[in-house]
Amino acid sequence: MATDIRTSELKEPVDVAEYLFRRLHEIGIRSIHGVPGDYNLVALDYITKNGLNWVGNCNELNAGYAADGYARVKGMSAIVTTFGVGELSAVNALAGAYSEYVPVVHIVGVPSTLSQRDGMLLHHTLGNGDFNVFANMSRQISCAVAPLNDPHDAAALIDNAIRECWLQSRPVYVTLPTDVVQKKVEGARLKTKLDLDFPPNDKEKEDYVVEMVLKRLQEAKNPVILVDACAIRHRALEEVHALVHTTNLPVFVTPMGKSAINETLPNYGGVYAGDGSNAGVATRIEAADLVLSIGAIKSDFNTSGFTYRVSQLNTIDFHSHMVRVRYSEYPGVRMNGVLKKLVDKIQTGDVSVHPGPVPNNDIPHSEISSPSPTITQAWFWPRLGQWLRPKDVVITETGTANFGIWETRFPEYVTAISQVLWGSIGYATGACQGAAMAVKELDRGQRTILFTGDGSFQLTAQEVSTCLRNKLNPIIFVINNDGYTIERFIHGMEDAYNDVQPWNYTSLPLAFGSPASEHIALSVKTKDDVEKLFSDEAFATSDKLRFVEILMEKDDAPQALKLTAAASAKTNERKE
Amino acid sequence: MATDIRTSELKEPVDVAEYLFRRLHEIGIRSIHGVPGDYNLVALDYITKNGLNWVGNCNELNAGYAADGYARVKGMSAIVTTFGVGELSAVNALAGAYSEYVPVVHIVGVPSTLSQRDGMLLHHTLGNGDFNVFANMSRQISCAVAPLNDPHDAAALIDNAIRECWLQSRPVYVTLPTDVVQKKVEGARLKTKLDLDFPPNDKEKEDYVVEMVLKRLQEAKNPVILVDACAIRHRALEEVHALVHTTNLPVFVTPMGKSAINETLPNYGGVYAGDGSNAGVATRIEAADLVLSIGAIKSDFNTSGFTYRVSQLNTIDFHSHMVRVRYSEYPGVRMNGVLKKLVDKIQTGDVSVHPGPVPNNDIPHSEISSPSPTITQAWFWPRLGQWLRPKDVVITETGTANFGIWETRFPEYVTAISQVLWGSIGYATGACQGAAMAVKELDRGQRTILFTGDGSFQLTAQEVSTCLRNKLNPIIFVINNDGYTIERFIHGMEDAYNDVQPWNYTSLPLAFGSPASEHIALSVKTKDDVEKLFSDEAFATSDKLRFVEILMEKDDAPQALKLTAAASAKTNERKE
Ligand SMILES: Cc1ncc(C[n+]2csc(CCOP(=O)(O)OP(=O)(O)O)c2C)c(N)n1
Ligand SMILES: Cc1ncc(C[n+]2csc(CCOP(=O)(O)OP(=O)(O)O)c2C)c(N)n1
Ligand SMILES: [Mg+2]
Ligand SMILES: [Mg+2]
Repeated sequence: MATDIRTSELKEPVDVAEYLFRRLHEIGIRSIHGVPGDYNLVALDYITKNGLNWVGNCNELNAGYAADGYARVKGMSAIVTTFGVGELSAVNALAGAYSEYVPVVHIVGVPSTLSQRDGMLLHHTLGNGDFNVFANMSRQISCAVAPLNDPHDAAALIDNAIRECWLQSRPVYVTLPTDVVQKKVEGARLKTKLDLDFPPNDKEKEDYVVEMVLKRLQEAKNPVILVDACAIRHRALEEVHALVHTTNLPVFVTPMGKSAINETLPNYGGVYAGDGSNAGVATRIEAADLVLSIGAIKSDFNTSGFTYRVSQLNTIDFHSHMVRVRYSEYPGVRMNGVLKKLVDKIQTGDVSVHPGPVPNNDIPHSEISSPSPTITQAWFWPRLGQWLRPKDVVITETGTANFGIWETRFPEYVTAISQVLWGSIGYATGACQGAAMAVKELDRGQRTILFTGDGSFQLTAQEVSTCLRNKLNPIIFVINNDGYTIERFIHGMEDAYNDVQPWNYTSLPLAFGSPASEHIALSVKTKDDVEKLFSDEAFATSDKLRFVEILMEKDDAPQALKLTAAASAKTNERKE
Repeated sequence: MATDIRTSELKEPVDVAEYLFRRLHEIGIRSIHGVPGDYNLVALDYITKNGLNWVGNCNELNAGYAADGYARVKGMSAIVTTFGVGELSAVNALAGAYSEYVPVVHIVGVPSTLSQRDGMLLHHTLGNGDFNVFANMSRQISCAVAPLNDPHDAAALIDNAIRECWLQSRPVYVTLPTDVVQKKVEGARLKTKLDLDFPPNDKEKEDYVVEMVLKRLQEAKNPVILVDACAIRHRALEEVHALVHTTNLPVFVTPMGKSAINETLPNYGGVYAGDGSNAGVATRIEAADLVLSIGAIKSDFNTSGFTYRVSQLNTIDFHSHMVRVRYSEYPGVRMNGVLKKLVDKIQTGDVSVHPGPVPNNDIPHSEISSPSPTITQAWFWPRLGQWLRPKDVVITETGTANFGIWETRFPEYVTAISQVLWGSIGYATGACQGAAMAVKELDRGQRTILFTGDGSFQLTAQEVSTCLRNKLNPIIFVINNDGYTIERFIHGMEDAYNDVQPWNYTSLPLAFGSPASEHIALSVKTKDDVEKLFSDEAFATSDKLRFVEILMEKDDAPQALKLTAAASAKTNERKE
């Protein structure tokens, strides 16, 4: 159990909880997500005291999603939960952050080290005296764990956890026993900022890899650049943009890489996802004799069901932990240094540039000629692209929204948030709260815009309340298409299990305690309604929370979703 | 991966999913809780086909809570989730069922065995090809696991899992890969019903234990009976009631044992929980020279912070896995057989009976004489006891409700549901949906009545929608006392982290899609309002969902809660 450090040993004694929250403040976190519980209450006192804001989510899963969304905008986040009941409620959100490389510090208030030693029969235990079960679960979805049981190593464990969280861009799990919260540790350590720099590549090895890459690039007659999620999550976007500018090569993104590249660049070519790619993109990429593939995660939903068709012989893969040139692997070489050096070395004439397709937000002809007033998926997403503004933060939920957004060409500096790999529904509404909080803190005039489905929204709807409580003003679009459309396309088009209870969505902000004058809630049923809404400048720039229900047909889905759903159904029933 | 059984080997081939759901039907389950996902969709087709009802919860945590509530009324339950995202969302509910001994079959639709073998990069994975991480988590909170990867052992694994679930009264974890759902297994097995009988005790050992117990009972001058949770969960209530009737001894319950005993019996004495006991109970029990303690779980919240004061020298403990007479332990002897034989052996004159206190639902004098119209905790809970009816199912949430209910004396055949040990807030609202579904199926004219707090309600409020979707008609009371009152009494009486967003609670059923004519929603602010409501027979017996907000003061709490909270705060800061 927790023993004290002799105060005479400490130059500047500070409480463990203070040390922890000051470190979180140091790296830029300003709001802490989570839910109170008696094992974390005393620690919560240190939040406001150390210049941080307590969000106070409705439940822990939602808090986890919110922390994920906050981290994707601000770089990193933290969530506080209570032992057992709280932390386990959040575990799916943390697993999602692990899967999708999002740095979240999960702080769990746990029973006193003395109670643990004595195996006391406390509330929130399994009743068997085993206090390690929940930690054993979280260990598997954390890149570092920090059991703060002893002030002698608490500060070091905190520093290490935060550093790993940042460098590996994945969650860490910190347990803070009630009797350790106020134990003293060395505050003088705080004068030295955490070193968050990636360890540099071995110079000789890096030079060698750069040469290999450069050689292939010089030989290539028709190279392209393809940017995926890990370029964003492992913070290589600056290097990538330098490469895009220097080479002028056509550049594409995968669905998970959406918003990595400034989509207004003349050499931006659109979304590549095999059969579900934007018009003209698949032929263009698959005709290339070299694909500089940066941060790829070739998962089913990121490739329209594994219809990615680029030969490894034509590929150079850049990753956070390795580079691969055709089949030659260079483990331990991080892409950032390689890309930087590559850009420095490229000479005029090294690169042969053949332009790619130019995406736009034009409405498809079939939609323009259709007399139907119904809002269709094919019509909506490019129309949305015309309405979005630079710097918008756009969150899309797994479902039609997350596939529809492939057809939206973004303005500059947009941040797209979604879970293409983990795909936990309900995520987007929680993430919207966190993102909106981050946007508020950054104070750069950004808007936070959520697109979720009626089915998904029902999982975590109460985070609209958390937005209201925190005076956040996201624009929330709920696509009401009578249930789980994405699931219908996989299996059970007409089955009742794909239905949901029809809510009066627009009355929710009121029910969550917002007077009618303090938010905007409306329902759009036709293309004309959307046109009217999208030309309403007051709506576009209001400082109120805006809640919009969009009606769409239950059997309408983006083409890319239909392809992916069919492929998933096939994989699920796969026999040899 | 899954290989086929040759059809010639099978007398009556049935699909694995059919086999599973028919077994669940056999043991009395009629509704399956859960949320669809593409890895379970094909399995869902078998639910209605096999005479079961699909509930369709708003999210998986809530589904897990609902399954728990359903099982507490109907004996056992099942929940279906999808790989990763779904199952992890539910893990806290299943951990609660594990902690509190509730038999729930958790069926997870997982990727095809072929996809798993190939380590495919599928949605809902951690992206690392490891398909075992989630199962490793659930294994720790399951009393059996059944990975249905091979039709050759699928039927046996299913039978074993369901049997263990029932016998150990704890969750089991069943994974059903998409390619196994329709594989054939031997349906002829279904003609033999599952053997759900507890293995009998060794006769000689049982006789010996009964003799020891009987001797102590004959010697005792002032024995009492104390009934706790495990008497309910391990299905010993019939034996306990026989003992209570045969001996006529004063009988008490712990908070977790509430409703185990018919509280209208003349020898029922009230709730024992150390310092938080009903009036007169602690002195009575602590004066006894023998306590027949049946199914005890002496956790902090069940004993008002470990203020249980009965010497082991005066105790006989009856458990599902052992009996203990003073300090003599008899492992492997189940209470049920021992109690039954004990009752058979007891002769007139064996037991010395001194009556105990007689609890009632009288309002305390201080409350009657108070001129204040405010609804107080001290006034409300006995007043509720006057209003309840035989057979009501009463669910109370962790918070003031779960302590207040100690002061409510129940009519006959009431079922009380709460989580005194696990204490996960949000549980009660989910459990209410499940209990209401079970009540509907049993069709015995029971009512389902929920008491939750405003803070707790916000975690899982959307299950009111699931109630509406399934045409359930619980009576839902939300105690609006401006936040987390129980937490305030532990730490942070005035701190903002114990506040919640003030909702317009009564407008929620409307927002969840119920026309005003199809439910009753109202707010009670004064004792008079409650009196009026409680004398409204139409309200009491309506077949509509009823939603009542009760206003109480933020610093008002039942006395037992104040004692327990103070003790918890002390345990949390405990130093040696
Ligand atoms: C936590 C969780 N539970 C279940 C699923 C399975 N699932 C994936 S998409 C989906 C339906 C989404 O429906 P909706 O939000 O209405 O989207 P849309 O109708 O636009 O496709 C479901 C149930 C999941 N991905 N995550
Ligand atoms: C899932 C979960 N998160 C957090 C907690 C910690 N906790 C216990 S009680 C409580 C507050 C309950 O407040 P409310 O429901 O309003 O009850 P009341 O005000 O009647 O005490 C909290 C946050 C918990 N027990 N479970
Ligand atoms: Mg939908
Ligand atoms: Mg409250």
